[in-house]
Amino acid sequence: MDLTSIKDPSFLKEMDIPELKKLSKEIRRFLIETLSKTGGHIGPNLGVVELTLALHKCFNSPKDKLLWDVGHQSYVHKILTGRADQFDTLRQYKGLSGFPKRNESMHDVWETGHSSTSLSAAMGMAVARDLKGESSYIVPVIGDGALTGGMALEALNHIGHEKSDMIVVLNDNEMSIAPNVGAIHNMLGKLRTDSKYQRAKDELEMFLKKIPAVGGKLAGTAEKLKDTLKYLFVSGIFFEELGFKYLGPVDGHNFDSLLENIQYAKKTKGPVLLHVITKKGKGYEPAEKDKKGAWHGTGQYKIETGDFIKPVDTPPAWSKLVSDTVLKLAKKDPRIVAITPAMTVGSKLEKFQEELPNRVYDVGIAEQHATTFAAGLATQQMKPFLAIYSTFLQRAYDQVVHDVCRQDLNVFFGIDRAGLVGADGETHQGVFDIAFLRHIPNMVLMMPKDENEGQHMVNTAIQYNDGPIAMRFPRGNGLGVPLDDELKKIPIGSWEVLREGSDACILTFGTTIQMSLEAANNLQKLGISVKVVNARFIKPMDEAMLLSILNTGMPILTVEEAILQGGFGSAVIEFAHDHAFYQLVIDRIGIPDQFIEHGSVKDLLQEIGLTAESIVHKIQNILPNKQQKRA
Amino acid sequence: MDLTSIKDPSFLKEMDIPELKKLSKEIRRFLIETLSKTGGHIGPNLGVVELTLALHKCFNSPKDKLLWDVGHQSYVHKILTGRADQFDTLRQYKGLSGFPKRNESMHDVWETGHSSTSLSAAMGMAVARDLKGESSYIVPVIGDGALTGGMALEALNHIGHEKSDMIVVLNDNEMSIAPNVGAIHNMLGKLRTDSKYQRAKDELEMFLKKIPAVGGKLAGTAEKLKDTLKYLFVSGIFFEELGFKYLGPVDGHNFDSLLENIQYAKKTKGPVLLHVITKKGKGYEPAEKDKKGAWHGTGQYKIETGDFIKPVDTPPAWSKLVSDTVLKLAKKDPRIVAITPAMTVGSKLEKFQEELPNRVYDVGIAEQHATTFAAGLATQQMKPFLAIYSTFLQRAYDQVVHDVCRQDLNVFFGIDRAGLVGADGETHQGVFDIAFLRHIPNMVLMMPKDENEGQHMVNTAIQYNDGPIAMRFPRGNGLGVPLDDELKKIPIGSWEVLREGSDACILTFGTTIQMSLEAANNLQKLGISVKVVNARFIKPMDEAMLLSILNTGMPILTVEEAILQGGFGSAVIEFAHDHAFYQLVIDRIGIPDQFIEHGSVKDLLQEIGLTAESIVHKIQNILPNKQQKRA
Repeated sequence: MDLTSIKDPSFLKEMDIPELKKLSKEIRRFLIETLSKTGGHIGPNLGVVELTLALHKCFNSPKDKLLWDVGHQSYVHKILTGRADQFDTLRQYKGLSGFPKRNESMHDVWETGHSSTSLSAAMGMAVARDLKGESSYIVPVIGDGALTGGMALEALNHIGHEKSDMIVVLNDNEMSIAPNVGAIHNMLGKLRTDSKYQRAKDELEMFLKKIPAVGGKLAGTAEKLKDTLKYLFVSGIFFEELGFKYLGPVDGHNFDSLLENIQYAKKTKGPVLLHVITKKGKGYEPAEKDKKGAWHGTGQYKIETGDFIKPVDTPPAWSKLVSDTVLKLAKKDPRIVAITPAMTVGSKLEKFQEELPNRVYDVGIAEQHATTFAAGLATQQMKPFLAIYSTFLQRAYDQVVHDVCRQDLNVFFGIDRAGLVGADGETHQGVFDIAFLRHIPNMVLMMPKDENEGQHMVNTAIQYNDGPIAMRFPRGNGLGVPLDDELKKIPIGSWEVLREGSDACILTFGTTIQMSLEAANNLQKLGISVKVVNARFIKPMDEAMLLSILNTGMPILTVEEAILQGGFGSAVIEFAHDHAFYQLVIDRIGIPDQFIEHGSVKDLLQEIGLTAESIVHKIQNILPNKQQKRA
Repeated sequence: MDLTSIKDPSFLKEMDIPELKKLSKEIRRFLIETLSKTGGHIGPNLGVVELTLALHKCFNSPKDKLLWDVGHQSYVHKILTGRADQFDTLRQYKGLSGFPKRNESMHDVWETGHSSTSLSAAMGMAVARDLKGESSYIVPVIGDGALTGGMALEALNHIGHEKSDMIVVLNDNEMSIAPNVGAIHNMLGKLRTDSKYQRAKDELEMFLKKIPAVGGKLAGTAEKLKDTLKYLFVSGIFFEELGFKYLGPVDGHNFDSLLENIQYAKKTKGPVLLHVITKKGKGYEPAEKDKKGAWHGTGQYKIETGDFIKPVDTPPAWSKLVSDTVLKLAKKDPRIVAITPAMTVGSKLEKFQEELPNRVYDVGIAEQHATTFAAGLATQQMKPFLAIYSTFLQRAYDQVVHDVCRQDLNVFFGIDRAGLVGADGETHQGVFDIAFLRHIPNMVLMMPKDENEGQHMVNTAIQYNDGPIAMRFPRGNGLGVPLDDELKKIPIGSWEVLREGSDACILTFGTTIQMSLEAANNLQKLGISVKVVNARFIKPMDEAMLLSILNTGMPILTVEEAILQGGFGSAVIEFAHDHAFYQLVIDRIGIPDQFIEHGSVKDLLQEIGLTAESIVHKIQNILPNKQQKRA
């Protein structure tokens, strides 16, 4: 069928299994073809084709609520809810989002991006339903990786206690992004290979219910007998102990089995955990064979060969530069331990894992634990390097405050994907970290101008033993500058003058340095002389240099790829006022007070007005002859 | 014995059980007497007297690491490690902390305050020990309430997977602060009453190990037989499934049982969960009888009667005012649902629970889940009221950003204990919330000047349907102002002039309004006329009023009981610069860039310099004739 003709999933009700199988093939072909041009989360979506079809066949969305945890596996759902015709714009500026979005469709009832939120949201929806006296199915779909995130476990504890009607679909593909870890993962592994006939359990429970209640002394014994018999026959004890009815494991690529078990779950009162086994990348050999997570999310690829199409001769990726530098130091420094919350591949820690396997810990999707685990290591004179994306560090804010900074422990945070991240969009933009870290006492926060300074900063962070230190660095590749052989230490809190000038001064760091230099060059042509400073330490700032700049009376422009409220520019004006520089023109440019959607970083910067042209304008505006002195 | 003569716990090694029992009695008497004068966490500490003695007898602190989760149960540990003589200063300014503090003793290896951190920290210590090739026991002591916090569950998942040697002591008193909730709690309830003889399990496992490995087709069957037999005899399947060896339940007030089981745990390889049953308040009848958590932490009390000594005629507590107002509205507005993460008593939600029991949810210590649960409710046109302490909201920062604000959902955050909290000290000060909330798009953040404005703000928040809204309010009691009968709506983003003046302007809100008015009165006597504004909306600010003030050219002082970096004052100077008011004197006063220890709020404000006198000084300094114009 023509997938772009689908308006809503109601047509599935009439389809029989052979038709569903045919449709699955068509959807797979569509995904493989479309994503080869746009890129996207191919692996997760190929894995849930049958599951998504089965769910939409058995439930009535949007009356029944389907919630997609993390949300990168919602493409099939998007196709079935009338969005196939927009897939050529997937993850592009003003195009279809790669995650569920409530403003795209009434079938997207919950927006995701970060992991492990769906069960809590589902519980909210279930309680609302029950209080309103309505009737509907609430069906969160959560991966085995996301399940081990702390908030998902908190939600299980609450749902199992309240016994709310809900069908939790555990989409178990034995991977989160990379292969999964953790005790729960091991436990699921046992379940996967369990051959107990599931129906036996229900028959058993029916039988147990018929055992008459025994009063007095024997009551406990009868209960125990029931429990013991249950243990004998029932799988999924872990979930049963949490108050869920466990159903599974179900082959997630077999419609008979899926439909039968979903229908059975619908008839069951209270919370059900439906354990579905799927295969990431199913139906496309290169993705199916992937063991490391390379096909989790991709750019463009050649369909026939499965080769990734990449621009040739790109400079090294920031993640790789950072991880490789840490590894180089770790070989000589036994204090160093690398930690990642399920991002071994994204953080380019594979080489570290190969060479120093017992010094790198993938703790699963568990940013809170990762952070405090690092703090625990630091109390024992180790030097933990926590490789974490800016957006995911948000989840460990309290641990950064309460465990790391308050105890002033030597944890090195490598904050990856800081700034705009592009196609992943508003859930993943790394634009808040300066605002949420700068106000924490004891924190040192820095950002390098290029890969060479980056490697020296990594060395600086590792050698720093006076408390927490964080280096933020952007998504993507460096500038291609040559790397020094010898690693240096950069004095903490030191800035660097990149360009002298006398009419105005730009204070900036990281990704916005290039556009600032370009603006300064363009202004030079207009006869305006602009000083540009690499303000590489956001906290502590180079107070001596800042004072000397303030003392010149030059107008100052701060430029940052980060939220403006409470950001770096805010720190500069705070400092100026604290030091009684009340007569100075200081202006700021950065990310405004709004969530920034998906699109190429270039398009987004243009939209925000974070460009060399804007800087030129701003500087022209704050020059003395242009100022509006209202006071 | 004289408890103040204890220098370290080594003397316990020689003590027999009758001596230990005698010492327990002495410690209980000491705690009951001392805390009747100082106040403190009496319930939790009376519950762990025997457990703490047994742990210090069996382990060698500080070589072996004892970690106290939450930490309010560490008083007995403090007595045994040489701090009994400081108990008269407990939780007072410059006195003994109510939580473990590394600068107090080498036996305090991990600082706590917030819940559920100990397992992650213990894992860090265990990995450090193993990498260094050292040998020591790592013993986190965690309550059943703290165990259900998401990060503790993340840690269990990691520890059980890595199989690190560690003895997790589960101190199960069936309460966190209030009675516990959740599926894990129910599961522990079953274990508590389990009469299986624990040793049977070990004998069984020995026996199972002797079954020869069977190759080929039968291998699976033999494994299954082992599993089945295990289920028959083994308790604590939940923990066993997570990779722990479960030991218990152990009577936590019986030395024979405690010592035997701890010794057994010491001999066990890999992670052990030692389930110890204790009774909060043990040995002091009023505390022992407490079912609601009133004796968790107290002020002064009369030993003989158990009556709390309270100042007479105090104005209503802020928590009560807020919760009662929400309840009043909830009776007429079926959209309202109240949520608390284990703080029913602290947030004064008991009355709500009595009157609308199915509209209030205690989700346990689970701030992340609580927040996203609220978000889920809001998607269904409900109006969730999340009652949460400022310091604990830190743990839900990502959920506030990603789930609530990004989706612009109608969640009402009642941020309790905002500002300095006093005796609980640096882990609990509510001083970061403005800095971590102000930069989040869509958030409305306000703070009332008194209880009457407070009740109107609650009404305003409930009626507000344009996204997230938060009201912060302080710990303790209101000012005692009369309450209007009719609830009003306060225009969003509106400030209020409290006092006119022409020489300078103070912008402030909440608790610092009184000292600002006092300062203005004192300045009046010196001939200085100061305008005082109730800047009750921190975000959005009253831009019209702020512009008009900026246009007067008056020097401005912002005053806030919150961290200065990125705070309210920062917002004011950001705004001034964004609107090209570059010639203005704007100064800020608030909490400096450091963690603030425990003590009375009054002492702390004095130390920080957040007083009427400081405000007078600051204003005098920024008046035009006093300014240093360096630029």
